[in-house]
Amino acid sequence: MKVLIIGGAGMVGRNLAEALVASGRLGDRAVSEVTLFDVVPAATQGTDAVAVRVMTGDISDRATVDALVADRPEVIFHLAAIVSGEAEADFDKGYRINLDGTRHLFEAIRAEAGYHPRVVYTSSIAVFGAPFPEAIGDEFITAPMTSYGAQKMIGELLLNDYSRRGILDGVGIRLPTIVVRPGKPNKAASGFFSGIIREPLAGLEAVLPVDDDVRHWVASPASATGFLIHAATMDTGPLGARRCLTMPGLSVTVGEMIAALGEVAGEDKVALIKRQPDATIRGIVAGWPRNFDAARATGAGFVADASFQDIIRAHIRDMETAG
Amino acid sequence: MKVLIIGGAGMVGRNLAEALVASGRLGDRAVSEVTLFDVVPAATQGTDAVAVRVMTGDISDRATVDALVADRPEVIFHLAAIVSGEAEADFDKGYRINLDGTRHLFEAIRAEAGYHPRVVYTSSIAVFGAPFPEAIGDEFITAPMTSYGAQKMIGELLLNDYSRRGILDGVGIRLPTIVVRPGKPNKAASGFFSGIIREPLAGLEAVLPVDDDVRHWVASPASATGFLIHAATMDTGPLGARRCLTMPGLSVTVGEMIAALGEVAGEDKVALIKRQPDATIRGIVAGWPRNFDAARATGAGFVADASFQDIIRAHIRDMETAG
Repeated sequence: MKVLIIGGAGMVGRNLAEALVASGRLGDRAVSEVTLFDVVPAATQGTDAVAVRVMTGDISDRATVDALVADRPEVIFHLAAIVSGEAEADFDKGYRINLDGTRHLFEAIRAEAGYHPRVVYTSSIAVFGAPFPEAIGDEFITAPMTSYGAQKMIGELLLNDYSRRGILDGVGIRLPTIVVRPGKPNKAASGFFSGIIREPLAGLEAVLPVDDDVRHWVASPASATGFLIHAATMDTGPLGARRCLTMPGLSVTVGEMIAALGEVAGEDKVALIKRQPDATIRGIVAGWPRNFDAARATGAGFVADASFQDIIRAHIRDMETAG
Repeated sequence: MKVLIIGGAGMVGRNLAEALVASGRLGDRAVSEVTLFDVVPAATQGTDAVAVRVMTGDISDRATVDALVADRPEVIFHLAAIVSGEAEADFDKGYRINLDGTRHLFEAIRAEAGYHPRVVYTSSIAVFGAPFPEAIGDEFITAPMTSYGAQKMIGELLLNDYSRRGILDGVGIRLPTIVVRPGKPNKAASGFFSGIIREPLAGLEAVLPVDDDVRHWVASPASATGFLIHAATMDTGPLGARRCLTMPGLSVTVGEMIAALGEVAGEDKVALIKRQPDATIRGIVAGWPRNFDAARATGAGFVADASFQDIIRAHIRDMETAG
């Protein structure tokens, strides 16, 4: 089967591509070709069994999207997005990529007669807005507080409607914050959640800009790959008209993350975390959801990480493999 | 002040236009000009005090919408929509008018520097999907089951985001089914709710295709006009980021409607209602919401009809005035 990953050069797309190429399978079917599309060329290499096709372009250009879909991949992962901060800073770009780009994809599929692919769409917990209950359930109202959240919610509505119409077979997954992100520190407000684990493990200092009792909803990179593969292979019948699900994660406080780091890697690593309270980041993080009851997703077979200790151990293994 | 009504030739737009022209006011401000835009020419006549400008066109054409907004009306009522049945039958047309047309309007406003009009947007209870609680509250999840509902919900998300960004000052109102609609029977599945009152009052037979215990959420044409005027003049500060409200209505059963008709107009009118069960209409109506708790709207000053008897009496008065 042929698989298309839109956003194939980002962290989540790269992990997924590498998993597909390494296993040569998606569920019980062999994968013959993976097309990796992004604004920059993806680096994942193919094998004799699995060809990798790397393409670049802009999904806000309809002709570009038509060309991607003309190959009729059986499964399309739509991971491409302008992230929260940039969508807030650049109103036009956010709507152009996150709304027009998504709609172009669904319309390009509709234009192919007799074509009905599985489409896995990464949504976000940014579809929810404060005030939040103790744990956000599957029936909680979607009231986004950012342009990014509004754009992701519009994508969910389109995915549901195009699925209900039989144009495509969609599954939307709202990912937790991915921790531990590999690589260098980035400027995302959520970056420190990874930084306070990743930097000490590499022997570097990390800055913690919030209090230890801040609670957040996280999943490992491996879980994110697992969610995508399950979404691509699951039976969508039981989802009915509501194709979008909050993924199961772990609700952990910063203090619990730090304690887990000490337990797994030693107190000398913990000593590398420097507390430098930052009012701006504190304010942003205070508006984020802290905990979910992801019962629908769990019932549909999506599996969360077992513990934050396991997330740290998996990151250590990934570093050793990469090193 | 100048007022623009997009959808000014429909029942709701016409009633609103006539109210504005008759009073010459919108809240505490004098109205100097009302522009009525629709696909067909609106018939409302101006007065010496209030000029009426009639324009026709298609809001899926951006240049048309730019021209409407170039006049910088202080208040814009956006009532134009492809209705539920047609949006389901014609996928392209529904998205073109209900999504692209709405977005064109908001973008045309954004393109006008220093312009920040009040925009009143008619949404719909079709943003909600079954299963429903006994009464749908303001925190109930929006999960539309039709393309029309998805399009209206996308419009709500855009209205909220453009308002949050300070581009416009939006209020979205989800109207109940309007009863008693004047004029001839139409083919809408909800048409009988008006028909069983309107036709007998005119001495004609009416067909009732559902059981007497079917419950529905209704408001009078006069209430719809009142909602629009209040939405145009209210203080939007207390709405915060959630600019869209379910309007207060009456939750009445068909049996209660018929009893009210007998009480107000006599049992000889009731005798003109012919029970002809229709499985298709029964099925459609079974999927509709039956009751709401419109607490936010009531708290924001929107006022429901007092009783179904009052709705019937108001229709009788309107007929006498028209006659």
